[in-house]
Amino acid sequence: MLETILKSKLVKTMENIAGKENVLSSKEDLYVYSTDSTNITNQDELAQAVVFPKTTEQVSEILKYANKKTVPIIARSAGTNVCGACLPKKGGIILDFSKMNKIIEINKDNLICKVEPGVIVEDLQKAVEEYDLFYPPDPSNLKVSMIGGSIGLSSGGPHTFKYGSTKDFIIDLEVVLADGTIINTGCECSKNVTGYNLTQLFIGSEGTLGIITQATVRLIPKPEAKRVMLAYFNTLEDTSKTVNDIISNLITPSVIDLMDKNTLQTIESFYPSGLLTDKEAALLIEIDGFNSTLDEQYQKIIEICQNNNSSYIQTAKTKEEEEKIWISRRSSFGATAKLAPNVVTEDVVVPRENIVALVRGISIICNKYELKTCIMGHIGDGNIHPNIALDLRNPKEKENFLKAKEELFNLAVSLRGTLSGEHGIGCEKSQFITKAVAPDTLKLMKQIKKLLDPKNILNPDKIFSEE
Amino acid sequence: MLETILKSKLVKTMENIAGKENVLSSKEDLYVYSTDSTNITNQDELAQAVVFPKTTEQVSEILKYANKKTVPIIARSAGTNVCGACLPKKGGIILDFSKMNKIIEINKDNLICKVEPGVIVEDLQKAVEEYDLFYPPDPSNLKVSMIGGSIGLSSGGPHTFKYGSTKDFIIDLEVVLADGTIINTGCECSKNVTGYNLTQLFIGSEGTLGIITQATVRLIPKPEAKRVMLAYFNTLEDTSKTVNDIISNLITPSVIDLMDKNTLQTIESFYPSGLLTDKEAALLIEIDGFNSTLDEQYQKIIEICQNNNSSYIQTAKTKEEEEKIWISRRSSFGATAKLAPNVVTEDVVVPRENIVALVRGISIICNKYELKTCIMGHIGDGNIHPNIALDLRNPKEKENFLKAKEELFNLAVSLRGTLSGEHGIGCEKSQFITKAVAPDTLKLMKQIKKLLDPKNILNPDKIFSEE
Repeated sequence: MLETILKSKLVKTMENIAGKENVLSSKEDLYVYSTDSTNITNQDELAQAVVFPKTTEQVSEILKYANKKTVPIIARSAGTNVCGACLPKKGGIILDFSKMNKIIEINKDNLICKVEPGVIVEDLQKAVEEYDLFYPPDPSNLKVSMIGGSIGLSSGGPHTFKYGSTKDFIIDLEVVLADGTIINTGCECSKNVTGYNLTQLFIGSEGTLGIITQATVRLIPKPEAKRVMLAYFNTLEDTSKTVNDIISNLITPSVIDLMDKNTLQTIESFYPSGLLTDKEAALLIEIDGFNSTLDEQYQKIIEICQNNNSSYIQTAKTKEEEEKIWISRRSSFGATAKLAPNVVTEDVVVPRENIVALVRGISIICNKYELKTCIMGHIGDGNIHPNIALDLRNPKEKENFLKAKEELFNLAVSLRGTLSGEHGIGCEKSQFITKAVAPDTLKLMKQIKKLLDPKNILNPDKIFSEE
Repeated sequence: MLETILKSKLVKTMENIAGKENVLSSKEDLYVYSTDSTNITNQDELAQAVVFPKTTEQVSEILKYANKKTVPIIARSAGTNVCGACLPKKGGIILDFSKMNKIIEINKDNLICKVEPGVIVEDLQKAVEEYDLFYPPDPSNLKVSMIGGSIGLSSGGPHTFKYGSTKDFIIDLEVVLADGTIINTGCECSKNVTGYNLTQLFIGSEGTLGIITQATVRLIPKPEAKRVMLAYFNTLEDTSKTVNDIISNLITPSVIDLMDKNTLQTIESFYPSGLLTDKEAALLIEIDGFNSTLDEQYQKIIEICQNNNSSYIQTAKTKEEEEKIWISRRSSFGATAKLAPNVVTEDVVVPRENIVALVRGISIICNKYELKTCIMGHIGDGNIHPNIALDLRNPKEKENFLKAKEELFNLAVSLRGTLSGEHGIGCEKSQFITKAVAPDTLKLMKQIKKLLDPKNILNPDKIFSEE
């Protein structure tokens, strides 16, 4: 009863700050907001309210209230993360940023763009493309995911190999701190050494250190042309050596992604597009740059692939064929999801020299635990996504998955890698962070968390546990 | 007397930790270490000792001692900074890292290199070049400056426009914290979102948060070819428009630097190399990439320069001519230094659309205060270095300079820029940081400083004052 009264007071306060039409509090609505794109079976925690802020000042007011009353605050944009980064593990208020979705400015001379957190990543890319500019980070879910979440998790994507991830394209953030204070972390200049780099402290902090309400994005001139190809190989060793040889030949492809046999077969069974299904692996290679340079790069790559026994190379001849290859590649997660009621994706990363050991090791672990697994990822970065299809309602399968997951992390760390390259830690990997982050480093992270959020209201229990 | 006893005890302790041969404590030696490449007239503070550590463990031991006894610790590598970043403002122990100068590993498959802080930047560049790899950051003093200082100040250089500055090439740091704890901030994978980005917190923190003892550097494949040209213009407006037009034409030069008339004239009088001296400004443009693409980029750039009334374009035809242009460009600081007993360089940065207003404004300020000024810098990044020649022993000139300096910072900030793009703040700009960093942002920086260095032993009074 007390809880009901408190909740109604909280909801009233939120309505006063953000307007009645911008607050949800029905059980049904809160249930919807108790999940994100992560496959979690026990969604037993509900928030007390979901608020759609429209201004930074509203966010500041909400945080002042929440800090005073010690109410958890969970920032959320599209909720497309796969690590449980915006689950209300301790209840509280979810701030849904989808109504703060303005592209405030695109400035071609300064090569920057200012955005609110609710801007969809693909919308940002398309908007700047009209000015012949390019925002490279491209998480697979870019058609729905929003820049706020991208920044919160420092999302990557296939183009990260050449261009870098979200962190490399943000030069200033407007952040609301736990006590409601509004700060800017940088300025409009991408070269800036005036004080500590607070911008990068907030990027990838998953809303645990402050709430991002605006970002200044660095842009680059759009590459004039690109070419996409798929090269198939009979062994992983040949595939990996091809990647090394391409780079040794001074070529930096804009994309160099891996799909294993299971991935190729699974995509082809649900979204037939002519992928070969009898090869051990395929590389999706995209090169870009000036038109004049594509032929030379292309010829070199073909030669390298052939020298490494590539059994077949398919090159997109038209925009449509290119799009078709990309659609296949991007449907790998969706296709795997059709194999079983649930699909879980992981995101381990290792130094590239250990990539074959990682991929082989993943197969061994998944076979041992009888898990259907499609392995793909950004091989150029050493970043591999095993997509595991299973039925989490089946206790045995779930138990097997949890064991496999832990072994996967052990494997990545033993290969001098880490738990996550671009998906984040959230609450899905937080219990494992000590495998990858040494005690004294973790201690410092926790001290910084405590400094910025002494009452632990900002997305509690994410990345690591406060205890 | 008490001080002498304390000093001798401190020196003894240092000798015990690092070996007698690695400790300096004579007045003469300490006097030498009371300066760096910054022009400071009052070098009245001396350190108590200079120590050359050989291992991380020694650094840890020294910090444990210093933290217990509240003795300032100043990290120094080559001392080539120009912002007073390693002056012993409060005495203490200077850690000279020039004996920790090993390149530990170059790994071509993983595109990384591990280095100790005392490695000279050019040595690093040359070492990785043998593997066809490229480390782009290139501060003007790269023949002597060391990677430790480069990281501490997040140095840039001409190639920053295309490739980014030091911060964009460091993925892991070994850091000794104030209390002697040794941590690593990242891992060998450049894609890593496992916990907070501590790496970037230490980069550019000028030794005020921790002491860097090892770094993992990210590398990229070396561009196959490059071409260097100098284009002269009769107005700044034409010069600036040329830069915008080049970028609008989807070209990202690897370098796009500005030299004004005074710079051209000054270089030419002291290091004659055929620079034209009757033009308002010149652009040093370098393009790089595949051989096959250079002609096309070059033709486009020439056309753009001509459309913007470039009066003369000189292209390096040989390696020697290329080197000659670079030597002229890099001697701008040295040449200015010949105009008067002292030369001071500043490092303001603005959004590029304001570059003409900045350069014109600098001239107006320097004329007003009768200061001989050569203006050059990285126009693509909006980052301008006024090199001011003066006699700091002349009280009037010094007073004029200090007034001009403050007006310069006011100007940069009024143009939405900031105090420093790549040189750092040190103790030379710390009193002005409040012009560029808002109180609440600065408060957070100070809280972070206090968290990491509660006794304020790490390079005290740099970036901002603790009070």
